Amino acid sequence: MVDSFRIGIAGLGTVGAGVIKILQTHQTMISGRAGCSVEIVAVSARDKSKDRGVDLSRYEWLDKAASLAGRDDLDAVVELIGGEEGDALELARNALDNGISFVTANKALLAHHGYDLAVLAEENNVSLMYEAAVAGGIPIIKSLREGFAANEIEAVYGILNGTCNYILTEMRETGRPFSDVLKEAQDKGYAEADPEFDIEGIDSAHKLCLLSSLAFGVKPDFQTLKAQGISHITAADISYAQELGYRIKLLGISRQIDGTIIQMVEPCLVSESSTMGAVEGVFNAVFVEGDFVGTELQIGRGAGEGPTASAIVADIIDLARGYKVPAFGIPALMLADANKGDPGEMESRFYIHLTVIDKPGVLAEITAIMRDHDVSMEDVLQRGRDPENSASVVITSHSTKQAEIHKAVAKIESLDFVVKNPTLLRIENF
Amino acid sequence: MVDSFRIGIAGLGTVGAGVIKILQTHQTMISGRAGCSVEIVAVSARDKSKDRGVDLSRYEWLDKAASLAGRDDLDAVVELIGGEEGDALELARNALDNGISFVTANKALLAHHGYDLAVLAEENNVSLMYEAAVAGGIPIIKSLREGFAANEIEAVYGILNGTCNYILTEMRETGRPFSDVLKEAQDKGYAEADPEFDIEGIDSAHKLCLLSSLAFGVKPDFQTLKAQGISHITAADISYAQELGYRIKLLGISRQIDGTIIQMVEPCLVSESSTMGAVEGVFNAVFVEGDFVGTELQIGRGAGEGPTASAIVADIIDLARGYKVPAFGIPALMLADANKGDPGEMESRFYIHLTVIDKPGVLAEITAIMRDHDVSMEDVLQRGRDPENSASVVITSHSTKQAEIHKAVAKIESLDFVVKNPTLLRIENF
Repeated sequence: MVDSFRIGIAGLGTVGAGVIKILQTHQTMISGRAGCSVEIVAVSARDKSKDRGVDLSRYEWLDKAASLAGRDDLDAVVELIGGEEGDALELARNALDNGISFVTANKALLAHHGYDLAVLAEENNVSLMYEAAVAGGIPIIKSLREGFAANEIEAVYGILNGTCNYILTEMRETGRPFSDVLKEAQDKGYAEADPEFDIEGIDSAHKLCLLSSLAFGVKPDFQTLKAQGISHITAADISYAQELGYRIKLLGISRQIDGTIIQMVEPCLVSESSTMGAVEGVFNAVFVEGDFVGTELQIGRGAGEGPTASAIVADIIDLARGYKVPAFGIPALMLADANKGDPGEMESRFYIHLTVIDKPGVLAEITAIMRDHDVSMEDVLQRGRDPENSASVVITSHSTKQAEIHKAVAKIESLDFVVKNPTLLRIENF
Repeated sequence: MVDSFRIGIAGLGTVGAGVIKILQTHQTMISGRAGCSVEIVAVSARDKSKDRGVDLSRYEWLDKAASLAGRDDLDAVVELIGGEEGDALELARNALDNGISFVTANKALLAHHGYDLAVLAEENNVSLMYEAAVAGGIPIIKSLREGFAANEIEAVYGILNGTCNYILTEMRETGRPFSDVLKEAQDKGYAEADPEFDIEGIDSAHKLCLLSSLAFGVKPDFQTLKAQGISHITAADISYAQELGYRIKLLGISRQIDGTIIQMVEPCLVSESSTMGAVEGVFNAVFVEGDFVGTELQIGRGAGEGPTASAIVADIIDLARGYKVPAFGIPALMLADANKGDPGEMESRFYIHLTVIDKPGVLAEITAIMRDHDVSMEDVLQRGRDPENSASVVITSHSTKQAEIHKAVAKIESLDFVVKNPTLLRIENF
């Protein structure tokens, strides 16, 4: 046990300021819990003069984050710079190499370089901690790495991006189109000025591959993870889904099936009466299925100053308590290459929204193609809404192989009466 | 790091057999996660000849659990005997005193002796672990002790007893009376032959005082915790609650208010559209409110072989990994005596069910008493259902002090037209 646990903080945006706020507000309480005082030694950010609402006068100011890594008076560096390369990566490598533990909220960095950094941490007998990188205030990294360590994990899935969930919730509640609600979310600070990472599912994919790694003992595998976002979801899709008893959620899903791992990020229909369907607004939710524990679910705030800073400080307290655990639950050198399964083989129900020219025989042709691909249909809605004589045909299928439904939809799409790209969404039963 | 982490198991009921099953099934996986092999050295139970569905032939058999504590070849003893005194307590004291860590699912033991045992563990530089004691497969002990360690906790509450939740769910879904459903639960193995601990709220109270201790840094305080069970809840109460948009749940609630701690276990009305209201059957749910993390919720299986054994083995893996953390999150000697708040001062809405003789003026007298105690009413239902000319009057109040509503109900109870003890239940908004 040491008398004090000394940290440096790189990056003083919302979360960085939140970390300082917690450590200042709860100094005594945290000393009691950590078994020693947690001391901020030095901080670094771009603009020294900016008012961050916290008193920085007692900490050494460094203009360059990189200089934190070379110090010999730090037990851990907290990285809140962001970005998968550049300063964040350099700081991570140099700090770990210098025997300083590394605490980060940076999912992009770890999705790309998590394996190498975990190896480096273990070579230098220090820790790589990232509770804040996935689902903010929900302690899902700790739960998978420790709480469910007795289980072979069968699946981990959930709502991993609060921005998308906020947008989808608002679209449903107000009937407004995607672009409108995105703009509002940006104005409110719920979405970034450059929203691509969030709305194209990349942020969820970063998080999902960290969860997969922990759950299944494999190297983070971002490269092969195909993410689909929510920018193609229309108000009409949300409304049809609702009519059929569903809500649309952007889900990250990772399943172990016969020794292979299937990872996907895509908007899915979930029952409006399910727990997943009830997770609305900026909230995140993560489900874990283990062979002994069964299904466990955690719901909480996935982003924002308080929840994210809370997760960062929890990691710091763990380190100060002397806890040392491999970043991905097993020694990095034991992590396997993910044996990627074929999503085409996965069976589920699907939602298909076609926009067609409203003329006789259209439905007959569509349903004939479905039949030819062995896709049996559950619900069919036909609505003529459009002033330009186009109609919507919405179909939900019974359980069918993804590859088959893709073939069927591709064939339908090539018909001359189909006037827009069809929307094809998985229906997930939880 | 040691080559193997050696354990002894006392008690081979369902959970004990489950622990052995996990350690045998997942031997290689657990070695990878723990950083060493986990080895069962010796086991003990009452009846050696009983078939438990697991192979015990490789383990030393001890007729007396007590002899586990004296051994010098064990790193931890797993206690699954149960009971707050007797063999379990003796084993705990002797094992810890002999420098052996103690892992248990025994909430009664810890609710009564947790403080002394935590002190003893720290004096001997070993650990007292009890993830399995509260909410089975939900890693709520770890979450409070570590995941939310950066927060001042404002409240922790939830559905902590699966047996009661199963009974209340069944009563609502089938309209059957308590005694019927209890009998069925006993036949199915969801309730003990002697169900008192479960149905009178004592089991929930044991768990709640462990959660309070972790959340607020106080000694477990079971003695002053007044628990109310569910045996007085009638099918009529459940039906009236449903008519008003609520479900009845047995809740454990612990709140920190102005430096005092208010703990209660009682059946409450919760909105049927709330997440808490949607937790049905044998599931448990725990909510935590922290000043930075906000509200976080975990839902999972609260009992049964798999979930409970999963939690026990998670504790074992933590110990094998070398993690050492005080049992209640801070050193035991720093735990304060709980400064008990006055529940009478707590304000909430209430549900009151009165059975009265159906004659003119009854409602006028009741409402006059309510007015005299400053209790304003939200909903009033009057129903003449009973063949013996008695009627039900169901009232929900606006927010009011518990002490006031108790006085009002006591006065109403003394009126000669009230023919049964009134039912008074808190309405909780989550």
